[in-house]
Amino acid sequence: MTEADQQTAANKPRRNVLYAQAGGVTAVINASAAAVIETIKQHPDVFGKTYAALNGIHGVLEENLLDLTDISNETLDKMKYYPGAVFKACRFDLDPLEHNPEQYQRVLEVFKTYDIGYFLYNGGNGSMVTALKVAEYCCKHGHKVDCIGVPKTIDNDLDITHCSPGYGSAAKYIATSFIEAATDIRAMHETSSKFFVMETMGRDAGWLTIAAGLIKDVIPDAPVIILPAERKFNKDKFLAKIDQLIESKGYCVCAVSEGLQDENGNYLSIATIEHTIERDYVQLGGAGSVLARIVNQHLDSKTHCAIPDYCQRSASHLVSETDWQIAYDAGKAAVKAALNDEHGVLPIVKQTGSNPFSYCYETISLVDVANLDKQVPDEFITEDGMDITEAALEYLRPLVQGERPLRFKNGLPDLEPIEFSAVEKQLPEFIAIK
Amino acid sequence: MTEADQQTAANKPRRNVLYAQAGGVTAVINASAAAVIETIKQHPDVFGKTYAALNGIHGVLEENLLDLTDISNETLDKMKYYPGAVFKACRFDLDPLEHNPEQYQRVLEVFKTYDIGYFLYNGGNGSMVTALKVAEYCCKHGHKVDCIGVPKTIDNDLDITHCSPGYGSAAKYIATSFIEAATDIRAMHETSSKFFVMETMGRDAGWLTIAAGLIKDVIPDAPVIILPAERKFNKDKFLAKIDQLIESKGYCVCAVSEGLQDENGNYLSIATIEHTIERDYVQLGGAGSVLARIVNQHLDSKTHCAIPDYCQRSASHLVSETDWQIAYDAGKAAVKAALNDEHGVLPIVKQTGSNPFSYCYETISLVDVANLDKQVPDEFITEDGMDITEAALEYLRPLVQGERPLRFKNGLPDLEPIEFSAVEKQLPEFIAIK
Repeated sequence: MTEADQQTAANKPRRNVLYAQAGGVTAVINASAAAVIETIKQHPDVFGKTYAALNGIHGVLEENLLDLTDISNETLDKMKYYPGAVFKACRFDLDPLEHNPEQYQRVLEVFKTYDIGYFLYNGGNGSMVTALKVAEYCCKHGHKVDCIGVPKTIDNDLDITHCSPGYGSAAKYIATSFIEAATDIRAMHETSSKFFVMETMGRDAGWLTIAAGLIKDVIPDAPVIILPAERKFNKDKFLAKIDQLIESKGYCVCAVSEGLQDENGNYLSIATIEHTIERDYVQLGGAGSVLARIVNQHLDSKTHCAIPDYCQRSASHLVSETDWQIAYDAGKAAVKAALNDEHGVLPIVKQTGSNPFSYCYETISLVDVANLDKQVPDEFITEDGMDITEAALEYLRPLVQGERPLRFKNGLPDLEPIEFSAVEKQLPEFIAIK
Repeated sequence: MTEADQQTAANKPRRNVLYAQAGGVTAVINASAAAVIETIKQHPDVFGKTYAALNGIHGVLEENLLDLTDISNETLDKMKYYPGAVFKACRFDLDPLEHNPEQYQRVLEVFKTYDIGYFLYNGGNGSMVTALKVAEYCCKHGHKVDCIGVPKTIDNDLDITHCSPGYGSAAKYIATSFIEAATDIRAMHETSSKFFVMETMGRDAGWLTIAAGLIKDVIPDAPVIILPAERKFNKDKFLAKIDQLIESKGYCVCAVSEGLQDENGNYLSIATIEHTIERDYVQLGGAGSVLARIVNQHLDSKTHCAIPDYCQRSASHLVSETDWQIAYDAGKAAVKAALNDEHGVLPIVKQTGSNPFSYCYETISLVDVANLDKQVPDEFITEDGMDITEAALEYLRPLVQGERPLRFKNGLPDLEPIEFSAVEKQLPEFIAIK
């Protein structure tokens, strides 16, 4: 802020902040939360009370709020390495306005009741749509609320930003686990399994899958196959590459996107399909097992498949220090946007230097990013579609740099649940999901 | 050794040592290897050259040997935190003597050629049978070779010993991952998945499964179901418990043995069946996915399943310091047994104190332990067969104590392959697997 801005701020009435978390968690989303709270505390002239909603926008609707105004430094400190989402994260979007105007009226009512002047929503693509809907509705109804997104997703599929907070840690987890498992099969393949596959999350984006390719920096000649969701699966070419690698190296390690599709556009595996009013939600999962079976039949030899599932997004014991800092800075940048009276924006990471990697946060309009998926670019994937390029490695390396050891107590992660002060409800009951 | 023993040793010709690794790896088996080599180095009056066979007994047969006599401290240091098996580990047992005497003759021939006076075999149940067969054959043929086992297995199913080196680290990995994943589903269950299951290795023993129960020490009221292979699976009782936990806590986290059987004695899931001359080898895997599907259908809600697979036995980034020390001491104890001229023995862990936990190594005859499986005792499992008791927690706690951080380089585990000096072959070719 310039001095003139600060003057303006000083003359404005202090208004309250509401922060909430939504969508799949990351290992560092709570670092963003801590940054939001710590940065707000530095500006008592601008901000009044700090609230969190439990379960994102769901908690706004149901008036499930926490008062963070007097949060202790000890709690903030604990949040900085706590996985999951300390304020709970929802898989819940607002209905389209025309279908369910009551939801929007309710959000506005809650905002007015608690004099919310700033709504900070920490989430991925879908959550940015929610933030945008709320921003537009409040604006249209003359209630001044600065709606600001705080980015996060292990999937790294938020558009425009150089990377998403949370991705670097999940990438470090995948790469580390993949490299360790490779030492296992390398040690045993001559008389046991010759094929190991790890299935990564990310839906239709292969960002987490390509992270396994970092093995090249540790075991340069590792016989590796990387199958990001951006390329269609061709069984014959896949098996031909398996044969070639096993012929030359004796074994093969493979990483596959849960969202890998065959050449007809069918997912290799679907876990479940959930039917909601708006759409059918396809839960992916099982592509790794499918590949393990295919190779088992082809080689007539044991194969192995690891599915880290939730572990890849909650591994606070393998956080990337760089990613942690990016997540912390995301929270700071969101509060700075609030200080600048920005509305309907998302802070995004802009790379400012390489060797050493540096970045800053800039804000863009939520309109420009909401629901736009970013896929792994062509230049990161080799021509055969089954490996990553040096360009991909150059992108990945800075994001996994540095460790941030988890605190252990009696040999186990020190992750006792954190307690917060709930706010006594003032409004009539509202049921979010009927 | 007494002074008299030392005197005897001094008068004996120095003889060479052959060390080898076999069976599924652990995160700390190479600590045992380093201890063997370091302890041998302290007794140049007794031991001559130190060799390792590549791929366990398979490498003995094929004369694939490494010379470790002049191994550097730097390499030993690296071995101490390296996962996998640095000398490669075989899934290969000797045939019964009457079926294949050539194998035994060949082992003896290799031992004689390299003047092997001590054969140290680092493995689990199956490998102890091999060590015993070799010991008996050499003894019968008048060739003095002290055959000594070095225990290891993440499955913890070696009998008599208090615990197996490698188990504590795998237990720490399972517990940590399970606790972290629980923070994830706890944060999201109100609008997303309500059931998470993690499938652990261990075949017909539930030792790794019960390790997930350590969550009780961190999240005391965690809604948890533990399904060790020692109890038959009853679907109705399982679903009733799910309903009760979800009713009271909103979600449920579950750990299941890959070897869980239904009440008819059928495995919930089999990955593959491999036919060998001696027996059909059933590869387990998939029990977690089966449970996730059952609960998905029952609740009509998304469920999640993690299968760590190899990661649970190669996670050098989550080693238990206590387990590491137990593994290191196993190597030392084996060399001490050699110094004591013991033959056909296995050093086992004997607990000598609790609070604080202490132990020593004692040797027992390989005859007493080979191929005897140790299952989780009744007093570790609750009456309903779906949880663990305080007695189990008391057993588990000491084994996961302490951390031993992995070295990272540029954000990735520093696990460049370690190179060793191969020995030039002196004997005619021998093909171990025809």
